[in-house]
Amino acid sequence: MAVKKTAKTEKTKYAVGIDLGGTNVVMVLVSQDGKIKADRRFSTQADKGPEFVISNMAGNVLEMIKEAGLKAAQVKCMGIGAPGPLDSKKGIVIVAPNMPGWKNIKLKALLEKQTGIKTGVENDANCAVYAEKWMGAGKNADNVVGFTLGTGVGGGIILNGSLLRGVTNTAAELGHTIIEMNGRQCGCGNKGCLEAYASASAIAAFAKEKIKAGAKSAITELVKGDLNKISSKTVYEALLNNDKTAQDVWQYFTESLATGIAASLNSLNPQVVVIAGGVINAGDRLFVPLRKDTAKRAFAAPFNAAKIVPAKLGEFAGALGAAGVVLNESAYYGIK
Amino acid sequence: MAVKKTAKTEKTKYAVGIDLGGTNVVMVLVSQDGKIKADRRFSTQADKGPEFVISNMAGNVLEMIKEAGLKAAQVKCMGIGAPGPLDSKKGIVIVAPNMPGWKNIKLKALLEKQTGIKTGVENDANCAVYAEKWMGAGKNADNVVGFTLGTGVGGGIILNGSLLRGVTNTAAELGHTIIEMNGRQCGCGNKGCLEAYASASAIAAFAKEKIKAGAKSAITELVKGDLNKISSKTVYEALLNNDKTAQDVWQYFTESLATGIAASLNSLNPQVVVIAGGVINAGDRLFVPLRKDTAKRAFAAPFNAAKIVPAKLGEFAGALGAAGVVLNESAYYGIK
Repeated sequence: MAVKKTAKTEKTKYAVGIDLGGTNVVMVLVSQDGKIKADRRFSTQADKGPEFVISNMAGNVLEMIKEAGLKAAQVKCMGIGAPGPLDSKKGIVIVAPNMPGWKNIKLKALLEKQTGIKTGVENDANCAVYAEKWMGAGKNADNVVGFTLGTGVGGGIILNGSLLRGVTNTAAELGHTIIEMNGRQCGCGNKGCLEAYASASAIAAFAKEKIKAGAKSAITELVKGDLNKISSKTVYEALLNNDKTAQDVWQYFTESLATGIAASLNSLNPQVVVIAGGVINAGDRLFVPLRKDTAKRAFAAPFNAAKIVPAKLGEFAGALGAAGVVLNESAYYGIK
Repeated sequence: MAVKKTAKTEKTKYAVGIDLGGTNVVMVLVSQDGKIKADRRFSTQADKGPEFVISNMAGNVLEMIKEAGLKAAQVKCMGIGAPGPLDSKKGIVIVAPNMPGWKNIKLKALLEKQTGIKTGVENDANCAVYAEKWMGAGKNADNVVGFTLGTGVGGGIILNGSLLRGVTNTAAELGHTIIEMNGRQCGCGNKGCLEAYASASAIAAFAKEKIKAGAKSAITELVKGDLNKISSKTVYEALLNNDKTAQDVWQYFTESLATGIAASLNSLNPQVVVIAGGVINAGDRLFVPLRKDTAKRAFAAPFNAAKIVPAKLGEFAGALGAAGVVLNESAYYGIK
């Protein structure tokens, strides 16, 4: 005799999401519709090595679940966003440049062993962009391109609702689209990559170069003459005071980012382009010139079809997206 | 009483494919497994206006089917690759710059009326790349990126076996990825697009500029001093004779194209990159430096995963691909 399954007998599914950064770990416990039930944030302490970092994360996951009044069995899966390059299919971090000892670390296997929860490992920028598609600035859109601006420039591409991974799961490296052939040296070894023009580090580097070359600027006073202390925030502070050098730097930055966005619009024709990272706090000072500069560089049809918007989810984006993508695309991560 | 359908009662499906160019029309009649049953090639006579061009194509389609011993009813559908911009969903050519009078032409509706065959209209570069994925250099690959090099640079992207169209069906404009911010003027109005560096016209333009600027070159003799007669073929001829100017031009061309290919590899991570157009006749003189230059500009994983290869289907690619994409993705074109 067949037993009818009713909606009531179905358990609500939960997932854990972790954003593993070189400095901090952010984690969330979410229901399958993306509601945050609990969250944690703590120092990565990367200097203690991968073994410590992983067991510290595993311990925090189990505690967080317990404190939320749930049992580990109610948690369907766990996603962890990690800095690349990584093998997301196997769940291995190949190397994490900012974390000592992270080389060929079987992150999926180790976390599964220590928590008993099926785990998927995904590129951190992919997670942040997926989160915006799932619950944030790209909600209800099926085709979303995202740029995460920080020390580097990360990217994520969602087409027809799914993360674009490519044949070796290394797609969406949008920070390494060359916007200036034989241009500025990029950290990746190539020249002229978007990352060398549109990262927070690039903004600081432009300002430093200009001042070293003789430009007078309020930035110099802001860092008390120590040019190594220039950050994107210093540049922004000077920009608010109508500093000419800061304005030039900012214009170069927005034009460069616009060039990268235009390439995405012309090749992928998405509905939404999400920009994430601390720099989006500049609001209209960023988005007004950015949209204007992009309009000049992209075809009208894809430009008009796409909203270019700031990310909405802030510091939880990476963790939320890690949970969301592993929950919604579990088969890819070998999770039933 | 239900009648069982057997394999024998199923008809073999056929499709017509048309490649509508400013100079020539190429058409094929193919079986659903891509075998060419008949083909035709004739002058477009674009100067006679869209009405003439369309009825001339319709007449040729019906004749070609008849001559192949088939009835129009055995032809499931027809695909036509047309120069953009167009509305592939509605089957309208918005404007065809090289064909007088082509403005908001309801190509799908007109061809359907005159032939009785359900028709889909697709961007010509998309068709050429789709053909290579279906029957040519990208056969058996599900993720293929293609560049068609001619007067301009067209692009096509196939992901998970399907054409990437984007939300306004204007995706894959790979010729308009900016590789040099504020660089060379492109015909599209923007600056620094790949098309301004990697088209056959760009090769000729580079050579002309260099010679005008004083470079001595065998090219000058080849065109008997008339620099307006320089074409990519002249440059290639001089290249074969180890002409220094031709070598410089060629190197600039391959580096530029490599920059565009690298962007595709890093963002889309495909299995195959197909290059089409007359310039592929240069063989190893093109593909050896191209692969080397791309390796320098792309990440190792996506570079190693992708074959960079010449197109195989020659002049039939556009027509074959038009038939193939409309046959295989008929629902998109509103064909049951």
